Amino acid sequence: MKVGIIGLGRMGQGIASRVAGAGHDLCVYNRTADKAAALAKAGAKIAKSVAGACEGREVLITMLAHDEALDEVTRGPSGVLASLPKGSIHVAMGTHSILATRAVSQAHADAGQLFVAAPVQGRPEVAAAGQIGIFAAGPADAVTRCRPLFDVIGRKTYEAGTDQTTAAAIKVAHNMVLGCAIEALGEGFVLAEKYGVKRQLFYEVLTDVLFACPAYKGYGKLIADEDYDKIGITARLALKDADLAFAAAEDVTVPLPSANAWRDRLLGAIAHGLAEKDQSVIAHAQAKASGLR
Amino acid sequence: MKVGIIGLGRMGQGIASRVAGAGHDLCVYNRTADKAAALAKAGAKIAKSVAGACEGREVLITMLAHDEALDEVTRGPSGVLASLPKGSIHVAMGTHSILATRAVSQAHADAGQLFVAAPVQGRPEVAAAGQIGIFAAGPADAVTRCRPLFDVIGRKTYEAGTDQTTAAAIKVAHNMVLGCAIEALGEGFVLAEKYGVKRQLFYEVLTDVLFACPAYKGYGKLIADEDYDKIGITARLALKDADLAFAAAEDVTVPLPSANAWRDRLLGAIAHGLAEKDQSVIAHAQAKASGLR
Amino acid sequence: MKVGIIGLGRMGQGIASRVAGAGHDLCVYNRTADKAAALAKAGAKIAKSVAGACEGREVLITMLAHDEALDEVTRGPSGVLASLPKGSIHVAMGTHSILATRAVSQAHADAGQLFVAAPVQGRPEVAAAGQIGIFAAGPADAVTRCRPLFDVIGRKTYEAGTDQTTAAAIKVAHNMVLGCAIEALGEGFVLAEKYGVKRQLFYEVLTDVLFACPAYKGYGKLIADEDYDKIGITARLALKDADLAFAAAEDVTVPLPSANAWRDRLLGAIAHGLAEKDQSVIAHAQAKASGLR
Amino acid sequence: MKVGIIGLGRMGQGIASRVAGAGHDLCVYNRTADKAAALAKAGAKIAKSVAGACEGREVLITMLAHDEALDEVTRGPSGVLASLPKGSIHVAMGTHSILATRAVSQAHADAGQLFVAAPVQGRPEVAAAGQIGIFAAGPADAVTRCRPLFDVIGRKTYEAGTDQTTAAAIKVAHNMVLGCAIEALGEGFVLAEKYGVKRQLFYEVLTDVLFACPAYKGYGKLIADEDYDKIGITARLALKDADLAFAAAEDVTVPLPSANAWRDRLLGAIAHGLAEKDQSVIAHAQAKASGLR
Repeated sequence: MKVGIIGLGRMGQGIASRVAGAGHDLCVYNRTADKAAALAKAGAKIAKSVAGACEGREVLITMLAHDEALDEVTRGPSGVLASLPKGSIHVAMGTHSILATRAVSQAHADAGQLFVAAPVQGRPEVAAAGQIGIFAAGPADAVTRCRPLFDVIGRKTYEAGTDQTTAAAIKVAHNMVLGCAIEALGEGFVLAEKYGVKRQLFYEVLTDVLFACPAYKGYGKLIADEDYDKIGITARLALKDADLAFAAAEDVTVPLPSANAWRDRLLGAIAHGLAEKDQSVIAHAQAKASGLR
Repeated sequence: MKVGIIGLGRMGQGIASRVAGAGHDLCVYNRTADKAAALAKAGAKIAKSVAGACEGREVLITMLAHDEALDEVTRGPSGVLASLPKGSIHVAMGTHSILATRAVSQAHADAGQLFVAAPVQGRPEVAAAGQIGIFAAGPADAVTRCRPLFDVIGRKTYEAGTDQTTAAAIKVAHNMVLGCAIEALGEGFVLAEKYGVKRQLFYEVLTDVLFACPAYKGYGKLIADEDYDKIGITARLALKDADLAFAAAEDVTVPLPSANAWRDRLLGAIAHGLAEKDQSVIAHAQAKASGLR
Repeated sequence: MKVGIIGLGRMGQGIASRVAGAGHDLCVYNRTADKAAALAKAGAKIAKSVAGACEGREVLITMLAHDEALDEVTRGPSGVLASLPKGSIHVAMGTHSILATRAVSQAHADAGQLFVAAPVQGRPEVAAAGQIGIFAAGPADAVTRCRPLFDVIGRKTYEAGTDQTTAAAIKVAHNMVLGCAIEALGEGFVLAEKYGVKRQLFYEVLTDVLFACPAYKGYGKLIADEDYDKIGITARLALKDADLAFAAAEDVTVPLPSANAWRDRLLGAIAHGLAEKDQSVIAHAQAKASGLR
Repeated sequence: MKVGIIGLGRMGQGIASRVAGAGHDLCVYNRTADKAAALAKAGAKIAKSVAGACEGREVLITMLAHDEALDEVTRGPSGVLASLPKGSIHVAMGTHSILATRAVSQAHADAGQLFVAAPVQGRPEVAAAGQIGIFAAGPADAVTRCRPLFDVIGRKTYEAGTDQTTAAAIKVAHNMVLGCAIEALGEGFVLAEKYGVKRQLFYEVLTDVLFACPAYKGYGKLIADEDYDKIGITARLALKDADLAFAAAEDVTVPLPSANAWRDRLLGAIAHGLAEKDQSVIAHAQAKASGLR
């Protein structure tokens, strides 16, 4: 398949290497050119512009860090809207807001192109191993046409429906459930610690059976060790996740009391200069609010 | 070992059957006598009073529903304090407040008896299978002497230290982390649903990898199916758990913002007549607060 | 009227001086005798026991610091229940929980005595000036008989009904609304300050018209000046108020999201050693949570 | 003074009539022309475009409903930036976000024009009577030059400094403190009601002394009467206020736990179709969450 990929951050590189490795005709573009070098060795063409990465492609994947980048790449001059052939598919795999997803969906529909929202779950090393989860939504035939690519890129693809915002909603709600879990973990660790319970013991108790899963084992370990430098996602980026959740919640009028607690601790941590620590640093903010440390 | 057990609710029966099955000399007592019948067949003696269940016992286990029962059984006339031989051990396996745990610990110390707090994690059927987790704290030699019993009763025993309140704190914090996880799940399901995401799909997305553990698979399933009649723990009893968490948190001055959200939704559910549903019914309260159902 | 008063803290002294000043036949009792001296000069008899203060009295007022004191004075050996003549009235003017109010009401009804719950609003100096507000509830004729006393003691008496818990509920809800107002003030001051708004200016803006009332002018001034040593009510006692609110709310299943925020900041302040500062110190906790100070 | 006014909603009309009444040379513009008719009678010129309202003006006042309108009017083709003489002053009296205020400030500075942020406090009838409060910030000489106008428009002008965002911050924090007060009121009323306290009585108790101010007397009355059709500000617009507060709070990293409670109840009310009721309808949402109504 003729595939273009725009956005070669750590996630984008992992995805691109999977696509190239599967033998597809790949053309990549990144704003800063050096990141494309490794992919050139793997056989990918290097485009010099967004338009160049779109030209003649059946599928154009974007993996961009935020809505502003998606907006610029898609709707800017010589952007995806202007450059992708009619009938081709734009697959946005970044984490984007409901609003941006809706706007880009409409713009592509107006332009006679197809748009699939396909945010993913998993860290860069998981992406490189082709083991991420994909939440895909868009026109049924477009999703079907992307299937072979998704099978190469990820471990499993969840088809959420024909409305692209459903995929965005899954990603947003998913990250929120995770953030809230971490906040609650922090409260539990601090409460137990104040009674003299060793953090390591509380970690074992929780993750032995009831919470024996990556979310609790991973973030729980960081909290038990108070090692907030092993970054899964920074507090700053987690706050972006929280913003996406609250924007979505307002859009469909859903109060989110747990997420409030998560967001407030993130703000507290960032206010104390911890924005670039792992988001589990909210457990540290919880400790400080409780008079510890 | 000469063992007494007081309190033969569903958890107590499971524990007693394990002790009897292992060949210990067991004497049981329950306020309503009929519950002891099955244990008699398994070889247990049936005492007619608290005092009778304590007489000559090396270890006396209580598995009582709340602090009031523990207080009455321990400190009432002809209670455990008055009846258990000096040097023997009272093991309280119910879920009790820090305050009650502290008071009973002191009373036993004053009376020359040993006290071990040993709350457990697991449902009645898990107890019957000898697979519960035990959080034990108390005088080191007392815990050591109880080890053979714990090994028969549960899957694993976590030794929390010599201060009995540490075990109580683990149990309280553990249940709080669980309650908060359920509240956050409810928020996630409702947010996703408002965008048209099928509950079953969101359930799969969450529990496939990141939250592939009993807490999320179990309670998540109830929420996905909106089947709040499969009772793990009722909303009413979960509120008791929340009360224990807040009492403990105030004792050691810990703010608990996530737990606030959990408690408020429990109150909302109970206010709407759902006290006897499973505590995951807070997801239903979340749905109603969001204009659904 | 033959009046007894038990409890001569700062509020009780103010009330007693008003009653003595109005020419009533007054007998007072306090656990520590020295506090009664000034009242003796004003013509009050000094009792040597709770029973002595009850003997032959038509109305017995208690002004006690907490439920435990009320319980002991009322139900202890030679307490009010045992010593007050049948048909006489016990008026409890302290701030007590719904539960304690209900229990004492029942006990007096069983003993053929009348019980009026009459918590008050106002600081000690306001009590000394006879300007406190009184929230009274109890049997209609008992409240009527107390009217002349209430008119001497306070500025205004609000009759809440025949169920004593209504008066307790008013007091509890009233203090909660105040606490939440202070918490919100703290959030507003800190948000404005982070943009460079002078605290004094924000204070003026708020209290000039929209919030031109004692609650905001008083507590707002403390926050504007960051002068938390002018004690209206300490953080520790405010936490007791919060506890009363949450106990009441659980009793009648009411979620209290704003009060959660209030309680959490109180806990945070107390965790940082500020328990004996004025409760407006929660604005300081808010500032710290936001990275200031 | 040569004054232009753009935006003749209810607030804008009140302001314009004050300016015209004081004898200033006034030129007004509104997107829909009919609203300008009454002002023409009072001697105002009617411009046919934004540019027309700016031409030759010393001061140009905008009173617009939201950031989008401000952005379009200011930066759109033939907008204020392009049309207002160099050295003239744009005074934005609408409620705008910190971000929009900052952006417009910068744009005017770049264009050699002066910009004063001057949001106001008060309802339309208060504006018509020249009794609103004004929070003004901007270059010192610009504020000074606007003084005579402010004196005609409002009751009092609070000068917040030279950074325009300080004025925006005051307005945002002010509205948040008000919203949180209303939320707490709702919690208090519902808690008291559940114990049988009449709403009218609780209203009197609160507003008699401690909360004897317009905010509590006004919104408290609506809640006491459950009369949410007397609109001060709709729930929908209050949610916009909450959004401004949270955006500001994130900008300067301030957690806002009380405001969370306010926002969640607004969302709950809107989810139940009450968006166009007065924002005190959150007390109704609180009642429903507590099993009432």
